[in-house]
Amino acid sequence: MRGRFITLEGSEGSGKSTNLAYIRQRLEESGVDVVVTREPGGTPLGESIRDLLLDHRNSDMGTDTELLLMFAARAQHLHERILPALDAGRWVLCDRFTDATYAYQGAGRGVPEERIATLEAFVQAGLQPDLTLYLDVPVEVGLARAGARSEPDRFEREAVAFFERVREGYRHRASADPERFRIIDASGTLDEVQKGIDTILGDYLAGFAA
Amino acid sequence: MRGRFITLEGSEGSGKSTNLAYIRQRLEESGVDVVVTREPGGTPLGESIRDLLLDHRNSDMGTDTELLLMFAARAQHLHERILPALDAGRWVLCDRFTDATYAYQGAGRGVPEERIATLEAFVQAGLQPDLTLYLDVPVEVGLARAGARSEPDRFEREAVAFFERVREGYRHRASADPERFRIIDASGTLDEVQKGIDTILGDYLAGFAA
Repeated sequence: MRGRFITLEGSEGSGKSTNLAYIRQRLEESGVDVVVTREPGGTPLGESIRDLLLDHRNSDMGTDTELLLMFAARAQHLHERILPALDAGRWVLCDRFTDATYAYQGAGRGVPEERIATLEAFVQAGLQPDLTLYLDVPVEVGLARAGARSEPDRFEREAVAFFERVREGYRHRASADPERFRIIDASGTLDEVQKGIDTILGDYLAGFAA
Repeated sequence: MRGRFITLEGSEGSGKSTNLAYIRQRLEESGVDVVVTREPGGTPLGESIRDLLLDHRNSDMGTDTELLLMFAARAQHLHERILPALDAGRWVLCDRFTDATYAYQGAGRGVPEERIATLEAFVQAGLQPDLTLYLDVPVEVGLARAGARSEPDRFEREAVAFFERVREGYRHRASADPERFRIIDASGTLDEVQKGIDTILGDYLAGFAA
Protein backbone atom coordinates (compact mmCIF):
# COMPACT_ATOMS: atom_id res chain seq x y z
CA MET A 1 0.00 0.00 0.00
CA ARG A 2 1.16 3.48 -0.84
CA GLY A 3 2.42 5.50 2.12
CA ARG A 4 0.72 8.58 3.53
CA PHE A 5 2.04 12.09 3.04
CA ILE A 6 1.72 14.26 6.17
CA THR A 7 2.82 17.88 6.31
CA LEU A 8 3.36 20.15 9.30
CA GLU A 9 2.83 23.87 8.89
CA GLY A 10 3.16 26.80 11.25
CA SER A 11 4.77 30.19 11.41
CA GLU A 12 7.63 31.51 13.52
CA GLY A 13 7.53 30.39 17.15
CA SER A 14 4.67 27.92 16.69
CA GLY A 15 6.83 25.10 18.09
CA LYS A 16 7.12 23.39 14.74
CA SER A 17 10.53 21.77 15.27
CA THR A 18 9.69 20.38 18.71
CA ASN A 19 6.35 19.06 17.56
CA LEU A 20 7.79 17.60 14.36
CA ALA A 21 10.00 15.38 16.52
CA TYR A 22 6.99 14.54 18.69
CA ILE A 23 4.83 13.55 15.70
CA ARG A 24 7.63 11.38 14.33
CA GLN A 25 7.92 9.64 17.70
CA ARG A 26 4.16 9.04 17.93
CA LEU A 27 4.03 7.62 14.39
CA GLU A 28 6.97 5.32 15.04
CA GLU A 29 5.40 4.13 18.29
CA SER A 30 2.35 3.19 16.23
CA GLY A 31 4.51 1.06 13.95
CA VAL A 32 4.59 3.50 11.02
CA ASP A 33 7.81 3.55 8.96
CA VAL A 34 8.22 7.30 8.51
CA VAL A 35 10.68 9.46 6.56
CA VAL A 36 11.07 12.93 8.08
CA THR A 37 12.10 15.73 5.77
CA ARG A 38 11.73 19.48 5.29
CA GLU A 39 11.19 22.27 2.80
CA PRO A 40 12.75 24.13 1.24
CA GLY A 41 15.49 21.52 1.05
CA GLY A 42 15.14 17.82 1.77
CA THR A 43 17.81 16.77 -0.77
CA PRO A 44 21.46 17.86 -1.21
CA LEU A 45 20.50 19.94 -4.25
CA GLY A 46 17.42 21.27 -2.46
CA GLU A 47 19.56 22.33 0.51
CA SER A 48 21.82 24.25 -1.89
CA ILE A 49 18.73 25.98 -3.26
CA ARG A 50 17.56 26.66 0.30
CA ASP A 51 20.90 28.34 0.99
CA LEU A 52 20.36 30.65 -1.99
CA LEU A 53 16.85 31.48 -0.78
CA LEU A 54 17.95 32.31 2.77
CA ASP A 55 21.16 34.13 1.84
CA HIS A 56 20.91 37.74 2.98
CA ARG A 57 23.06 38.87 0.06
CA ASN A 58 20.37 37.87 -2.40
CA SER A 59 18.14 40.72 -1.28
CA ASP A 60 17.45 41.81 -4.89
CA MET A 61 15.87 38.44 -5.61
CA GLY A 62 12.78 38.90 -7.79
CA THR A 63 9.52 37.37 -6.62
CA ASP A 64 9.34 35.17 -9.74
CA THR A 65 12.88 33.98 -9.06
CA GLU A 66 12.04 33.13 -5.47
CA LEU A 67 8.94 31.22 -6.48
CA LEU A 68 10.74 29.25 -9.20
CA LEU A 69 13.57 28.35 -6.83
CA MET A 70 11.07 27.17 -4.22
CA PHE A 71 9.39 24.91 -6.75
CA ALA A 72 12.73 23.72 -8.18
CA ALA A 73 13.69 22.50 -4.71
CA ARG A 74 10.22 20.96 -4.36
CA ALA A 75 10.43 19.18 -7.72
CA GLN A 76 13.75 17.64 -6.71
CA HIS A 77 12.36 16.72 -3.30
CA LEU A 78 9.41 14.90 -4.88
CA HIS A 79 11.60 13.22 -7.51
CA GLU A 80 14.40 12.07 -5.25
CA ARG A 81 12.77 11.52 -1.89
CA ILE A 82 9.03 11.93 -1.33
CA LEU A 83 7.59 9.94 -4.25
CA PRO A 84 10.07 7.03 -3.97
CA ALA A 85 9.26 6.74 -0.23
CA LEU A 86 5.49 6.83 -0.76
CA ASP A 87 5.77 4.31 -3.59
CA ALA A 88 7.73 2.02 -1.27
CA GLY A 89 4.88 2.17 1.26
CA ARG A 90 6.71 4.44 3.71
CA TRP A 91 5.03 7.48 5.20
CA VAL A 92 6.51 10.92 4.72
CA LEU A 93 6.37 13.63 7.38
CA CYS A 94 7.41 16.94 5.85
CA ASP A 95 8.22 20.17 7.69
CA ARG A 96 6.41 22.65 5.40
CA PHE A 97 5.18 22.12 1.86
CA THR A 98 3.20 24.08 -0.73
CA ASP A 99 0.78 25.55 1.84
CA ALA A 100 3.81 27.50 3.11
CA THR A 101 4.35 28.93 -0.36
CA TYR A 102 0.74 30.13 -0.50
CA ALA A 103 1.06 31.58 3.03
CA TYR A 104 4.51 33.23 2.78
CA GLN A 105 4.91 34.16 -0.88
CA GLY A 106 1.20 34.43 -1.60
CA ALA A 107 -0.56 35.98 1.40
CA GLY A 108 2.68 37.37 2.89
CA ARG A 109 4.44 38.87 -0.11
CA GLY A 110 1.44 39.39 -2.34
CA VAL A 111 2.32 36.96 -5.14
CA PRO A 112 -1.01 36.27 -6.90
CA GLU A 113 -2.44 32.90 -5.90
CA GLU A 114 -2.83 31.82 -9.53
CA ARG A 115 0.92 32.28 -10.13
CA ILE A 116 1.60 29.79 -7.33
CA ALA A 117 -1.15 27.49 -8.61
CA THR A 118 0.53 27.39 -12.04
CA LEU A 119 3.80 26.11 -10.59
CA GLU A 120 2.01 23.82 -8.13
CA ALA A 121 0.23 22.14 -11.05
CA PHE A 122 3.49 22.02 -13.02
CA VAL A 123 5.43 20.29 -10.23
CA GLN A 124 2.86 18.26 -8.29
CA ALA A 125 0.55 17.10 -11.08
CA GLY A 126 -2.33 16.86 -8.60
CA LEU A 127 -0.40 15.41 -5.65
CA GLN A 128 -1.54 16.83 -2.29
CA PRO A 129 -0.65 15.92 1.29
CA ASP A 130 -3.04 13.39 2.81
CA LEU A 131 -3.02 15.24 6.14
CA THR A 132 -1.77 18.69 7.11
CA LEU A 133 -1.31 19.74 10.72
CA TYR A 134 -1.26 23.51 11.14
CA LEU A 135 0.17 24.90 14.38
CA ASP A 136 -1.68 28.17 14.85
CA VAL A 137 -0.34 30.82 17.17
CA PRO A 138 -1.01 34.59 17.46
CA VAL A 139 1.81 36.54 15.78
CA GLU A 140 2.97 38.38 18.92
CA VAL A 141 3.20 35.11 20.88
CA GLY A 142 5.09 33.37 18.09
CA LEU A 143 7.55 36.20 17.52
CA ALA A 144 8.25 36.53 21.26
CA ARG A 145 9.10 32.82 21.35
CA ALA A 146 11.18 32.99 18.16
CA GLY A 147 13.05 36.05 19.46
CA ALA A 148 14.88 33.87 21.94
CA ARG A 149 16.76 32.27 19.05
CA SER A 150 19.96 33.17 17.17
CA GLU A 151 20.43 35.69 14.33
CA PRO A 152 17.20 36.04 12.37
CA ASP A 153 17.23 34.95 8.70
CA ARG A 154 15.89 36.94 5.77
CA PHE A 155 12.28 35.79 6.30
CA GLU A 156 12.30 36.29 10.06
CA ARG A 157 13.39 39.91 9.71
CA GLU A 158 10.19 40.84 7.93
CA ALA A 159 7.71 42.94 9.79
CA VAL A 160 4.91 41.81 12.06
CA ALA A 161 2.33 42.84 9.46
CA PHE A 162 3.86 40.29 7.11
CA PHE A 163 3.37 37.51 9.66
CA GLU A 164 -0.20 38.58 10.25
CA ARG A 165 -0.85 38.11 6.53
CA VAL A 166 0.93 34.74 6.62
CA ARG A 167 -1.27 33.58 9.50
CA GLU A 168 -4.41 34.70 7.71
CA GLY A 169 -3.18 32.87 4.60
CA TYR A 170 -2.77 29.64 6.51
CA ARG A 171 -6.14 29.97 8.25
CA HIS A 172 -7.83 30.69 4.94
CA ARG A 173 -6.33 27.58 3.35
CA ALA A 174 -7.21 25.46 6.37
CA SER A 175 -10.84 26.55 6.33
CA ALA A 176 -11.04 25.99 2.55
CA ASP A 177 -9.88 22.36 2.87
CA PRO A 178 -11.11 20.98 6.22
CA GLU A 179 -10.80 17.37 5.01
CA ARG A 180 -7.03 17.67 4.77
CA PHE A 181 -6.26 20.30 7.43
CA ARG A 182 -6.26 20.02 11.22
CA ILE A 183 -5.73 23.31 13.07
CA ILE A 184 -3.90 22.96 16.38
CA ASP A 185 -3.98 25.84 18.86
CA ALA A 186 -0.27 26.25 19.53
CA SER A 187 -0.57 29.12 22.01
CA GLY A 188 -0.95 26.79 25.00
CA THR A 189 1.70 24.81 26.87
CA LEU A 190 3.70 22.14 25.07
CA ASP A 191 1.77 19.53 27.00
CA GLU A 192 -1.57 20.92 25.80
CA VAL A 193 -0.37 21.12 22.20
CA GLN A 194 0.87 17.55 22.26
CA LYS A 195 -2.40 16.31 23.73
CA GLY A 196 -4.06 17.91 20.70
CA ILE A 197 -1.61 16.18 18.36
CA ASP A 198 -2.26 12.83 20.09
CA THR A 199 -5.99 13.15 19.49
CA ILE A 200 -5.56 14.02 15.81
CA LEU A 201 -3.04 11.27 15.10
CA GLY A 202 -5.08 8.77 17.09
CA ASP A 203 -8.15 9.49 14.97
CA TYR A 204 -6.15 9.44 11.76
CA LEU A 205 -4.39 6.17 12.50
CA ALA A 206 -7.65 4.59 13.64
CA GLY A 207 -8.88 5.08 10.08
CA PHE A 208 -6.13 2.74 8.84
CA ALA A 209 -6.54 0.14 11.59
CA ALA A 210 -10.19 -0.40 10.68
CA MET B 1 13.42 54.50 -27.33
CA ARG B 2 13.45 51.03 -25.87
CA GLY B 3 16.60 49.03 -26.60
CA ARG B 4 16.74 45.94 -28.79
CA PHE B 5 17.18 42.44 -27.42
CA ILE B 6 19.52 40.29 -29.52
CA THR B 7 20.33 36.67 -28.69
CA LEU B 8 23.07 34.42 -30.03
CA GLU B 9 22.45 30.69 -30.20
CA GLY B 10 24.59 27.79 -31.33
CA SER B 11 25.70 24.40 -30.10
CA GLU B 12 29.12 23.12 -29.06
CA GLY B 13 31.96 24.25 -31.30
CA SER B 14 29.87 26.68 -33.34
CA GLY B 15 32.25 29.52 -32.45
CA LYS B 16 29.71 31.22 -30.23
CA SER B 17 32.15 32.90 -27.79
CA THR B 18 34.40 34.28 -30.55
CA ASN B 19 31.48 35.57 -32.54
CA LEU B 20 29.75 37.03 -29.49
CA ALA B 21 32.78 39.29 -29.03
CA TYR B 22 32.72 40.10 -32.74
CA ILE B 23 29.03 41.06 -32.70
CA ARG B 24 29.57 43.25 -29.66
CA GLN B 25 32.43 45.02 -31.44
CA ARG B 26 30.37 45.58 -34.60
CA LEU B 27 27.44 46.97 -32.61
CA GLU B 28 29.70 49.31 -30.64
CA GLU B 29 31.36 50.48 -33.86
CA SER B 30 27.88 51.39 -35.07
CA GLY B 31 27.31 53.52 -31.99
CA VAL B 32 25.03 51.08 -30.18
CA ASP B 33 25.29 51.06 -26.36
CA VAL B 34 25.20 47.33 -25.73
CA VAL B 35 25.11 45.18 -22.58
CA VAL B 36 26.60 41.72 -23.15
CA THR B 37 25.40 38.92 -20.94
CA ARG B 38 24.83 35.17 -20.92
CA GLU B 39 22.51 32.37 -19.85
CA PRO B 40 22.21 30.50 -17.65
CA GLY B 41 23.68 33.14 -15.38
CA GLY B 42 24.00 36.83 -16.09
CA THR B 43 23.55 37.91 -12.44
CA PRO B 44 25.39 36.86 -9.25
CA LEU B 45 22.39 34.74 -8.20
CA GLY B 46 22.01 33.40 -11.74
CA GLU B 47 25.67 32.39 -11.79
CA SER B 48 25.12 30.47 -8.53
CA ILE B 49 22.19 28.69 -10.18
CA ARG B 50 24.36 28.03 -13.25
CA ASP B 51 26.93 26.38 -10.97
CA LEU B 52 24.23 24.06 -9.60
CA LEU B 53 23.12 23.19 -13.14
CA LEU B 54 26.63 22.38 -14.37
CA ASP B 55 27.81 20.60 -11.23
CA HIS B 56 28.63 16.98 -12.08
CA ARG B 57 27.57 15.86 -8.61
CA ASN B 58 23.97 16.83 -9.30
CA SER B 59 23.56 13.96 -11.74
CA ASP B 60 20.29 12.86 -10.15
CA MET B 61 18.72 16.21 -10.99
CA GLY B 62 15.14 15.70 -12.19
CA THR B 63 14.12 17.21 -15.51
CA ASP B 64 11.49 19.38 -13.81
CA THR B 65 14.14 20.62 -11.39
CA GLU B 66 16.52 21.49 -14.20
CA LEU B 67 13.83 23.36 -16.08
CA LEU B 68 12.69 25.32 -13.03
CA LEU B 69 16.28 26.27 -12.18
CA MET B 70 16.87 27.45 -15.76
CA PHE B 71 13.82 29.66 -15.60
CA ALA B 72 14.63 30.88 -12.07
CA ALA B 73 17.98 32.14 -13.38
CA ARG B 74 16.19 33.63 -16.39
CA ALA B 75 13.59 35.40 -14.21
CA GLN B 76 16.37 36.98 -12.18
CA HIS B 77 18.27 37.90 -15.32
CA LEU B 78 15.23 39.68 -16.75
CA HIS B 79 14.40 41.36 -13.43
CA GLU B 80 17.89 42.55 -12.54
CA ARG B 81 19.61 43.11 -15.86
CA ILE B 82 17.83 42.66 -19.19
CA LEU B 83 14.61 44.62 -18.61
CA PRO B 84 16.29 47.56 -16.81
CA ALA B 85 18.81 47.85 -19.69
CA LEU B 86 16.13 47.72 -22.41
CA ASP B 87 14.00 50.22 -20.51
CA ALA B 88 17.02 52.57 -20.34
CA GLY B 89 17.35 52.38 -24.13
CA ARG B 90 20.42 50.14 -24.11
CA TRP B 91 20.65 47.10 -26.33
CA VAL B 92 21.17 43.67 -24.82
CA LEU B 93 23.25 40.96 -26.50
CA CYS B 94 22.69 37.66 -24.75
CA ASP B 95 24.66 34.44 -25.16
CA ARG B 96 21.77 31.94 -25.24
CA PHE B 97 18.19 32.44 -24.12
CA THR B 98 14.95 30.46 -24.16
CA ASP B 99 15.58 28.97 -27.62
CA ALA B 100 18.42 27.06 -25.95
CA THR B 101 15.97 25.63 -23.44
CA TYR B 102 13.72 24.38 -26.24
CA ALA B 103 16.76 22.94 -28.06
CA TYR B 104 18.63 21.33 -25.14
CA GLN B 105 15.93 20.40 -22.63
CA GLY B 106 13.14 20.07 -25.18
CA ALA B 107 14.52 18.51 -28.37
CA GLY B 108 17.66 17.17 -26.66
CA ARG B 109 16.32 15.67 -23.44
CA GLY B 110 12.74 15.11 -24.52
CA VAL B 111 10.99 17.55 -22.16
CA PRO B 112 7.60 18.19 -23.79
CA GLU B 113 7.52 21.56 -25.55
CA GLU B 114 4.36 22.63 -23.71
CA ARG B 115 6.12 22.20 -20.34
CA ILE B 116 8.74 24.70 -21.47
CA ALA B 117 6.07 26.97 -22.93
CA THR B 118 4.31 27.07 -19.53
CA LEU B 119 7.40 28.40 -17.79
CA GLU B 120 8.30 30.68 -20.70
CA ALA B 121 4.87 32.32 -20.40
CA PHE B 122 5.23 32.48 -16.61
CA VAL B 123 8.60 34.24 -16.72
CA GLN B 124 8.61 36.24 -19.96
CA ALA B 125 4.99 37.36 -20.16
CA GLY B 126 5.27 37.58 -23.95
CA LEU B 127 8.77 39.07 -24.18
CA GLN B 128 10.80 37.64 -27.08
CA PRO B 129 14.20 38.58 -28.51
CA ASP B 130 13.98 41.08 -31.36
CA LEU B 131 16.68 39.25 -33.30
CA THR B 132 18.23 35.82 -32.85
CA LEU B 133 21.44 34.78 -34.63
CA TYR B 134 21.82 31.01 -34.83
CA LEU B 135 25.29 29.65 -35.60
CA ASP B 136 24.59 26.37 -37.34
CA VAL B 137 27.29 23.72 -37.62
CA PRO B 138 27.15 19.95 -38.30
CA VAL B 139 27.51 18.04 -35.03
CA GLU B 140 30.71 16.21 -35.95
CA VAL B 141 32.41 19.48 -36.96
CA GLY B 142 31.28 21.23 -33.80
CA LEU B 143 32.31 18.43 -31.44
CA ALA B 144 35.73 18.12 -33.11
CA ARG B 145 36.28 21.83 -32.51
CA ALA B 146 34.96 21.69 -28.95
CA GLY B 147 37.14 18.65 -28.18
CA ALA B 148 40.21 20.87 -28.20
CA ARG B 149 38.99 22.49 -24.98
CA SER B 150 39.38 21.63 -21.29
CA GLU B 151 37.40 19.12 -19.20
CA PRO B 152 33.90 18.72 -20.63
CA ASP B 153 30.96 19.78 -18.43
CA ARG B 154 27.83 17.77 -17.76
CA PHE B 155 26.10 18.86 -20.95
CA GLU B 156 29.13 18.37 -23.19
CA ARG B 157 29.53 14.79 -22.08
CA GLU B 158 26.20 13.82 -23.58
CA ALA B 159 26.24 11.68 -26.65
CA VAL B 160 26.40 12.78 -30.28
CA ALA B 161 22.80 11.71 -30.80
CA PHE B 162 21.79 14.26 -28.21
CA PHE B 163 23.52 17.06 -30.13
CA GLU B 164 21.88 15.95 -33.35
CA ARG B 165 18.50 16.41 -31.65
CA VAL B 166 19.60 19.79 -30.29
CA ARG B 167 20.59 20.94 -33.77
CA GLU B 168 17.28 19.77 -35.22
CA GLY B 169 15.51 21.61 -32.40
CA TYR B 170 17.26 24.86 -33.23
CA ARG B 171 16.65 24.50 -36.98
CA HIS B 172 13.01 23.74 -36.35
CA ARG B 173 12.59 26.86 -34.22
CA ALA B 174 14.47 28.99 -36.74
CA SER B 175 12.29 27.86 -39.62
CA ALA B 176 9.14 28.40 -37.54
CA ASP B 177 10.05 32.03 -36.83
CA PRO B 178 11.99 33.43 -39.83
CA GLU B 179 11.17 37.03 -38.87
CA ARG B 180 13.21 36.77 -35.71
CA PHE B 181 15.84 34.16 -36.65
CA ARG B 182 18.88 34.45 -38.90
CA ILE B 183 20.70 31.17 -39.56
CA ILE B 184 24.46 31.55 -40.06
CA ASP B 185 26.43 28.67 -41.59
CA ALA B 186 29.18 28.30 -38.99
CA SER B 187 31.03 25.43 -40.70
CA GLY B 188 33.19 27.78 -42.79
CA THR B 189 36.26 29.79 -41.79
CA LEU B 190 35.98 32.47 -39.14
CA ASP B 191 36.34 35.07 -41.86
CA GLU B 192 33.41 33.63 -43.82
CA VAL B 193 31.23 33.44 -40.70
CA GLN B 194 32.00 37.02 -39.76
CA LYS B 195 31.21 38.24 -43.28
CA GLY B 196 27.80 36.61 -42.79
CA ILE B 197 27.37 38.36 -39.45
CA ASP B 198 28.34 41.71 -41.03
CA THR B 199 25.63 41.34 -43.66
CA ILE B 200 22.94 40.46 -41.12
CA LEU B 201 23.84 43.23 -38.69
CA GLY B 202 24.21 45.72 -41.54
CA ASP B 203 20.69 44.96 -42.73
CA TYR B 204 19.29 45.02 -39.21
CA LEU B 205 20.91 48.32 -38.26
CA ALA B 206 19.87 49.87 -41.57
CA GLY B 207 16.28 49.35 -40.44
CA PHE B 208 16.91 51.73 -37.51
CA ALA B 209 18.85 54.31 -39.49
CA ALA B 210 15.93 54.78 -41.88
